[in-house]
Amino acid sequence: MSEVKIYKGLDGVIIDESRLSLVNGTEGKLIYAGYKIEDLAANALYEEVVYLLWEGTLPNRTQLEELRAAIAAGAIVPQPVIDTLKRLPKDADPMAVLRTAVSMLAHYDPDSEDLSKEANKRKAIRMTGQVTTLCAAWPRIRKGQEPVAPRPDYTLAQNFIYMLTGAEPEESAVNAINAFMVLLTEHGMNASTFVARATSSTLSDMHSAIVSAIGTLKGSLHGGANTEAMRMFMEIGDPANVENWFVTNVKNGGRKIMGIGHRVYKALDPRAAVLRDRAEQLARNSGNSKWFEIADKLAKLARADQYFIERNLYPNVDYYSAIVLYTLNLDVDMFTPLFAQSRMAGWTAHIMEQNAANRLMRPDVLYVGPMDLEWVPLDQRG
Amino acid sequence: MSEVKIYKGLDGVIIDESRLSLVNGTEGKLIYAGYKIEDLAANALYEEVVYLLWEGTLPNRTQLEELRAAIAAGAIVPQPVIDTLKRLPKDADPMAVLRTAVSMLAHYDPDSEDLSKEANKRKAIRMTGQVTTLCAAWPRIRKGQEPVAPRPDYTLAQNFIYMLTGAEPEESAVNAINAFMVLLTEHGMNASTFVARATSSTLSDMHSAIVSAIGTLKGSLHGGANTEAMRMFMEIGDPANVENWFVTNVKNGGRKIMGIGHRVYKALDPRAAVLRDRAEQLARNSGNSKWFEIADKLAKLARADQYFIERNLYPNVDYYSAIVLYTLNLDVDMFTPLFAQSRMAGWTAHIMEQNAANRLMRPDVLYVGPMDLEWVPLDQRG
Repeated sequence: MSEVKIYKGLDGVIIDESRLSLVNGTEGKLIYAGYKIEDLAANALYEEVVYLLWEGTLPNRTQLEELRAAIAAGAIVPQPVIDTLKRLPKDADPMAVLRTAVSMLAHYDPDSEDLSKEANKRKAIRMTGQVTTLCAAWPRIRKGQEPVAPRPDYTLAQNFIYMLTGAEPEESAVNAINAFMVLLTEHGMNASTFVARATSSTLSDMHSAIVSAIGTLKGSLHGGANTEAMRMFMEIGDPANVENWFVTNVKNGGRKIMGIGHRVYKALDPRAAVLRDRAEQLARNSGNSKWFEIADKLAKLARADQYFIERNLYPNVDYYSAIVLYTLNLDVDMFTPLFAQSRMAGWTAHIMEQNAANRLMRPDVLYVGPMDLEWVPLDQRG
Repeated sequence: MSEVKIYKGLDGVIIDESRLSLVNGTEGKLIYAGYKIEDLAANALYEEVVYLLWEGTLPNRTQLEELRAAIAAGAIVPQPVIDTLKRLPKDADPMAVLRTAVSMLAHYDPDSEDLSKEANKRKAIRMTGQVTTLCAAWPRIRKGQEPVAPRPDYTLAQNFIYMLTGAEPEESAVNAINAFMVLLTEHGMNASTFVARATSSTLSDMHSAIVSAIGTLKGSLHGGANTEAMRMFMEIGDPANVENWFVTNVKNGGRKIMGIGHRVYKALDPRAAVLRDRAEQLARNSGNSKWFEIADKLAKLARADQYFIERNLYPNVDYYSAIVLYTLNLDVDMFTPLFAQSRMAGWTAHIMEQNAANRLMRPDVLYVGPMDLEWVPLDQRG
């Protein structure tokens, strides 16, 4: 028998061509449709990046304003979905709530079962806005507050802060959320994007594919890591405790540092570099630099440690994004939904790319179980 | 630059070992954990196959009765989920409804966020029953009828017929549904099972993985095919029309025959052979053999046609299962949910297998978009 190669984890298996992003893990570079992530994070509105991913080029002012307005108008969540959220247990996992809510959106979307290019674009516009509305609504609903409807004149980052707080959004918070969303919106063939494409590959609909992606992002090895990173910083509690915590838990206890290390990046994740600067700035402006100091001190300890050096373990996007989101007063368990909200443009772009040149994804497994067993009637079994 | 191999569709890519089933597409053979599908379809209760997939061996009488009772007891769907279904639009797609309902089940499951082996088994027992309850409830709810609760003394096949009709289940219908469920419960690395494993690979929870699988099965290239096959038989309408329909639509019109051809089987799908006999028997007993005759006549035309011979295109499991389910008076758009209900044991078995030896699935894409574009400020764009 010839040797059978098993691609467990699918490392290095190229599943398709894509025009959406290039992740260069060796050099720590990330490009969206030709543009460096650093340029986009410094300059682009989230909607500009959405346009870039969906259309392949940057929009002019008219095109950008049209898309911004369409996303803001489409961001309204149908009342039956809001009503269902109000009836859910208040302690439900927020990613599970988002999964349920997005699945429900399909029942009220006139295009839900239409797979045409035009219908997909309309759904992508609506869902990109609606997921942000849901992420702002759930923290309010579970505290017994009324959700706030999106404003048609706002950008998505403005609307998020507005719908979350119910107040006029502050520019610094809007800018931080916008940059976070730009940085998180697309990242090649990560697990959730891959599952979105695989779901689409049976010619299932866009809502199904996004629901699959949300359920996949939920895991602690993927989107769940930002929440877990923050819980770790909270466990450390004070910059003075970092060294002791590192020795006890990591060096002697064998624990991993959440948010350090990445399957693809063997250099510094370029998103982490941008978010580190944002986190530092926010920490300084807010007067509460404790969490940034804990994170930065721990990262420096790890960077100087032989174990981390040998394995090329650097902070990833989840590490400093946790600090950014916490400084903005977001609930810790909403960090992963915020990741989902940001990734909507990338997921929908990949679904449309998959639909445009589809092939059903059907890999194989190697059967290693028993063969040729004889059927034994129930009463003759031991 | 060395040649890059793209595994679009992942054909032939082995992603893991599995002890659950062997699909031999060349010879048209299917084995579940050592046992031939023909033996299982002829002899086994669905719960026996569930035990086989979850435990790796056939149960004795006590073990089987314990599992049957546990599935029947766990099949109750929490009232808030039923209440939500009652509020949904009556014309909602049944697979989308099932996706929403299963996502909601998580909010009321005490083990939803527990990934331990023991919690996974408890969830698998509950969800296997609950999905059957949901599939019986939705056709009633959308007609304004009250759903029927499962009976603790029934098998799952009995309960399905009972919960669907509200009446004492007839033996012939129960036997047909039981055989259908046994035949459909497991089939290697098909797209929905693959997506269930990929979702689990981020260490997301079982409800998320099943929701992803349902959304993936929904597509017309996968579970949706049985519904589409029946719609095609209804379009033909009468055995006398088959020849003319075949020439006009297939030979001259280039249409595909839904339910003929399979990615893996290049011989007769062994499940189709069993289901053909069941369909014939049901047709004869019910006195309505029209649909079976249409299907069988069309299959024979295709089998004698050069195009189908050259491409090894045989009827697959969806082709005759459509006839079986239609003869049992099931709504045509419920055929795919019935597939999901049957596949629950396989999906949950694969999720548990994935959890037991996990590696995050993260493949790659080949970036073919532009490189090194300079950022252009908004007002300088054309």
